[in-house]
Amino acid sequence: MTDLITSVRDMQAVCADARQRGLTIGFVPTMGALHAGHGALMDQARAESQVLAVSIFVNPLQFDRRGDFDRYSRNLPLDREFCSRHRVDLLFAPSAKDMYPLPPRTFVEVTGISERLCGEFRPGHFRGVATVVAKLLNIVQPHTAYFGQKDAQQLSVITRMVDDLNMPVKIIGVPTVRERDGLALSSRNSRLTREERAVAPRLFQALQTALQTIQSGCCSAAHVRQTGLDVLSRDPRFRVEYFEVVTQADMQPVQEIDGPVVIAAAVWLGATRLIDNVTVECTPPIYPGSH
Amino acid sequence: MTDLITSVRDMQAVCADARQRGLTIGFVPTMGALHAGHGALMDQARAESQVLAVSIFVNPLQFDRRGDFDRYSRNLPLDREFCSRHRVDLLFAPSAKDMYPLPPRTFVEVTGISERLCGEFRPGHFRGVATVVAKLLNIVQPHTAYFGQKDAQQLSVITRMVDDLNMPVKIIGVPTVRERDGLALSSRNSRLTREERAVAPRLFQALQTALQTIQSGCCSAAHVRQTGLDVLSRDPRFRVEYFEVVTQADMQPVQEIDGPVVIAAAVWLGATRLIDNVTVECTPPIYPGSH
Repeated sequence: MTDLITSVRDMQAVCADARQRGLTIGFVPTMGALHAGHGALMDQARAESQVLAVSIFVNPLQFDRRGDFDRYSRNLPLDREFCSRHRVDLLFAPSAKDMYPLPPRTFVEVTGISERLCGEFRPGHFRGVATVVAKLLNIVQPHTAYFGQKDAQQLSVITRMVDDLNMPVKIIGVPTVRERDGLALSSRNSRLTREERAVAPRLFQALQTALQTIQSGCCSAAHVRQTGLDVLSRDPRFRVEYFEVVTQADMQPVQEIDGPVVIAAAVWLGATRLIDNVTVECTPPIYPGSH
Repeated sequence: MTDLITSVRDMQAVCADARQRGLTIGFVPTMGALHAGHGALMDQARAESQVLAVSIFVNPLQFDRRGDFDRYSRNLPLDREFCSRHRVDLLFAPSAKDMYPLPPRTFVEVTGISERLCGEFRPGHFRGVATVVAKLLNIVQPHTAYFGQKDAQQLSVITRMVDDLNMPVKIIGVPTVRERDGLALSSRNSRLTREERAVAPRLFQALQTALQTIQSGCCSAAHVRQTGLDVLSRDPRFRVEYFEVVTQADMQPVQEIDGPVVIAAAVWLGATRLIDNVTVECTPPIYPGSH
C-alpha cells in the first residue's frame, strides 16, 4: 500500500532523506480524481525513478470560480488505491491549512505565457498553478516531475518557470490519454450528461480537422482555425471559449505556421468546460498557391 | 584562495556534490563592492557552515534607475581577495547572460510587503530582488542564507518568500555594521562627497532619537516619526523619502506601537540615496498620559 503523508514537514523530511540516500525521485502533482491519464504519468515516472511521489492537492489558489473548486471531485481512499495499483511509494495529500498556514503573499507569475488562452478566461489561474507547483517542487525536491500534455499551457508555464528560476528539476510532458472515441481523459468529464458525453469527442475531431488542414499544406493559422471551428459549429451545444494556433515553446499566437505549433481549444458543453490540444511537430510542406 | 565559479551549471554541480556528501552550505548573496557589513555576514556563515558560498551578481532586474545600475561599483579581483580573507570556499560570479539566458518571464512577487517604503520609491525593486534570490537559492541550494538587517524590508520580503514557497533554506538576518560615527556600512557610501560623509551619520541619529522616544514610553507612531524627522530637518541637505514605524514581522504601518517594530528611513544626501533602520524589540512601558 502506498504511504500516505499529510504534513508538509513529514513530506520534506522523507524526501530529503531519500535524496540524501542517493535515490532519484519522480514526482506527479495532481488534484486527485485520478484516472488513466494520471496513470500514464505515474507509470512513466515509475519507470524512470527509484522513488515515486504523487501529490493530491485541490489548490484553492488556482480556481477562478468558487463553484468549480467546491464541485471538484475528492475521494482520497479511492485515489490512494489507484496509487497503490500504480506502485506509488509516497502519496502526499496536505490540507489547505498546512499548504497555506498564512494568507499567501508570495506569487510566482510567468508573464507572456499565462495571459492568453485559458489565462484570459480564468484570471489568476496560472499564477495559482505556478505558485503551488513551485511550493510542491520545493517540498518534494524531485529529480523529475511529470505533467500531462493535455494541459499544454500549464506545461509551458511550468517548464518556463523552472528554467527561469533555475529550479533543480527536469519537467517531462506526457502525451494525452484518450477514450476510444478520442475524448481526452479529464476529471471533469464525469460532470457531462450522457447526451453531452456522446457529443464531447467532437472537440478532438475539430482539433484533428485543423491538424489535417496544416498537414495538407495550409500555413494560415486563421484558415486552420476556421476549419476546426466549422466542425464545432455543426453542434449548437458547443460554446467555444477559444480555438487557437500557438507556438509550441511558449504558447504565442501564430499567423503564418512555419514551425512546431499547438492547436489548443477550450469549449463549454452545458455546465462543463473541456480543454484539449494537438501538437504539430513538423513544418507543413509549402505548396505554391496554398493558403 | 577562494574558488571562483562563473557558470550557473558549474555552481549547481559543485553545490549539489557538497550537499550529496552531507556538507552543510552557508550562502551569502551580494552585489559585490564588499565591505565589513558583508564581512559580518560571511563570518557568521563561516562559523555555522561547512561550505561557505558567496555570490556577486549586480542584478539588472532590481534596479529601477539605469544610472544606479551603471554606477554600481564592480571590482571582482578585489572582492575575491576580500572573500579569501573571510575564508569563503566558493565565489559565484555569473554573467547576466548566464543568469538570464532568455528574457525573464517568471517573477516572484511578495505582495503586501514589497509595495511600501523602498518599494514605493523603487517600483519593481523587490520583485527583482525576490526573483534573483529565488534563482540563487535554487542554484546554490544552501542550508542557510544570510542577509543584512540594514536592508530590513529586503530581509522581510525574502523571509516571507521562503516561508510561502516552502523553500528548503533557513534565512538569517545579521545585525547592521556601522562606522564609529554610526553610519551604516553601504557600498553606496563611497559616492558621498567629503562634506556629505561628514553629515551622513545624522540619519542614524534621527533613528536613535525616534527609538529613544519609544523607549521613553511614547506609543504614537506619528509622534515617534516626528521626533526623528525633526533631527533630519535641522540639516537642509537631507531630502527624506520616508521615515516610518512598521511591524517587524512584515513591515506593515503602525499607528499605536504595541509590539516589536522597525523604524526605517530612506533619505537622499546629494546624489546618493541612503537607507537605515533600527529595530525595537520591546513593547514600551505604558505610562498614563503618555502619547
